Amino acid sequence: MNQPDKEKTETIKNTSNDGLLHILGSGSALPMRDNYPTSQILELRNKQFMIDCGEGCQIRLREMGLSTSRLGHIFISHLHGDHCLGLVGLISTLGMMNRTADLYIHSHPDLERLTLPLLNYFCAESPFKIIFVPFNPSKHSIIYEDRSIEVYSIPLIHRVPTAGFLFQEKEKPRHIKREMIDFYNIPIASIHKIKMGENFQTLEGEVIPNSVLTTPSTPPLRYAFCSDTAYNESIIPFVEGVDLLYHEATFAESELLRAKKTMHSTARQAAEIAKKANVKKLIIGHFSARYRNKEILLNEARSVFKNTLLAEDKKTYPFF
Amino acid sequence: MNQPDKEKTETIKNTSNDGLLHILGSGSALPMRDNYPTSQILELRNKQFMIDCGEGCQIRLREMGLSTSRLGHIFISHLHGDHCLGLVGLISTLGMMNRTADLYIHSHPDLERLTLPLLNYFCAESPFKIIFVPFNPSKHSIIYEDRSIEVYSIPLIHRVPTAGFLFQEKEKPRHIKREMIDFYNIPIASIHKIKMGENFQTLEGEVIPNSVLTTPSTPPLRYAFCSDTAYNESIIPFVEGVDLLYHEATFAESELLRAKKTMHSTARQAAEIAKKANVKKLIIGHFSARYRNKEILLNEARSVFKNTLLAEDKKTYPFF
Repeated sequence: MNQPDKEKTETIKNTSNDGLLHILGSGSALPMRDNYPTSQILELRNKQFMIDCGEGCQIRLREMGLSTSRLGHIFISHLHGDHCLGLVGLISTLGMMNRTADLYIHSHPDLERLTLPLLNYFCAESPFKIIFVPFNPSKHSIIYEDRSIEVYSIPLIHRVPTAGFLFQEKEKPRHIKREMIDFYNIPIASIHKIKMGENFQTLEGEVIPNSVLTTPSTPPLRYAFCSDTAYNESIIPFVEGVDLLYHEATFAESELLRAKKTMHSTARQAAEIAKKANVKKLIIGHFSARYRNKEILLNEARSVFKNTLLAEDKKTYPFF
Repeated sequence: MNQPDKEKTETIKNTSNDGLLHILGSGSALPMRDNYPTSQILELRNKQFMIDCGEGCQIRLREMGLSTSRLGHIFISHLHGDHCLGLVGLISTLGMMNRTADLYIHSHPDLERLTLPLLNYFCAESPFKIIFVPFNPSKHSIIYEDRSIEVYSIPLIHRVPTAGFLFQEKEKPRHIKREMIDFYNIPIASIHKIKMGENFQTLEGEVIPNSVLTTPSTPPLRYAFCSDTAYNESIIPFVEGVDLLYHEATFAESELLRAKKTMHSTARQAAEIAKKANVKKLIIGHFSARYRNKEILLNEARSVFKNTLLAEDKKTYPFF
């Protein structure tokens, strides 16, 4: 039997549009013109998720020209006002824009009882359903799953129960080469197994290694969001090697004591986590209002972990 | 007896700094970058009041560099989200700024039960007291009074119970001329009566007319806020002759039917009210998001009432 083309060894790479992080708010408790409270939109391939929902996030969405037609799930890290007070306004606006798809809100259980009276009052005519999905922020567990994505909670250390989030694509089947199917007369019944990594045995008994028949799938995208939190090495196993880590960096090193007291991190500490977890890229955010110029935070982080970027409101960050 | 200086006839005028309106938000239900939801700060001489508290008003305060150290009272016109969803965030921020003075919130009674659970949760450590003062928006009545100011509710026509507000300085005593006190040997006991308008009788029995003894006080400042409302001539007696009227003008005349249906006003209707009430100056606001360029609204209003201005976020409007 003739041999088919030599095995291609190149890896299929994710491209810059496969993972995008849109920053709606990069500030902390005191909103500033250039740093609204925490909120961001994550795009993983064609899916859209919102993380936190600080006051004014709906204004940022509009400023950025971001459509929310693919937004089905909002994840709230913790119940401090600067992470969730924009929720009712956003939902009210989505209703006026005639959204009809259900909207799921994943959060600490208390959010429902705090927010539902307002939603019933201000958004009584909402044309879509709002479904609260409570989770326990103090536990590492899977809190959302669909065909291609899993979201895990990451327990953080803060003044109230707080979770970070790991968004992770599921491992995808390998790509089978069309020409191999023809060459080896592979029956349809075997294709799924080969995509899942099995070898193939021809009618003549020859075993064709999987690596000859398939190319790797694109690597799963992984994004971790960790805010608000004190320096906490116990999160390292959860964020190990992620493509992109957003970690809070509320203070510079000169405010280390204040960071400890308020259970926040310094920029340097954020970078320590990034380095120890061997992540690919770090974005720091949740800046204290005292830093008009954030260069000091960026420099302190970069001295530990070079591939660090500053979060900026209204800016979009590709994973790669 | 020699006659004193001839009676001075000039009127004492208010100056441009005696009454100031700061626009924090001039938009309507859909927040836009340049038109946040309704909120404004009124300054009457050295006093400061907030009217409505739409999402993002605390950001506007900061952008405008406005201190709230003299702010003791917030008046909420009605319980639609675009008029009150910024309240919890604002209160939370005031707490972080270490405010200690009590803050009074005047509104429909429902606001307390909607907001209190959030305040207790997010602002539990607030260093100042928040006092809800309910009023009935469907009734014209005095809802606040101090030594120099009265605030009246103005029933408006909208989809939920809604009130406008009339802020009115109390009539001030006339100024007694120092040289008259000396010239006629006016005893201290008589001074208050003369300031209140009485004549003075000398020991010789001569009656000195009050107009010789005093000069008029500065005219009381009067500001009326009317949003949201359908065209409603019944408010005219309440806003008659005010120095400044803020009236909603959500739509242009081409959307007259939509204005009726949603119980809003057109710019022309706002101007009709201003004209019929003979107000001194009109500011129109609460613009629908469809009007990027508001010239059409301004022109339609000015064709009826010339002294009309467009509300603009972050702009301060002197009364005179």
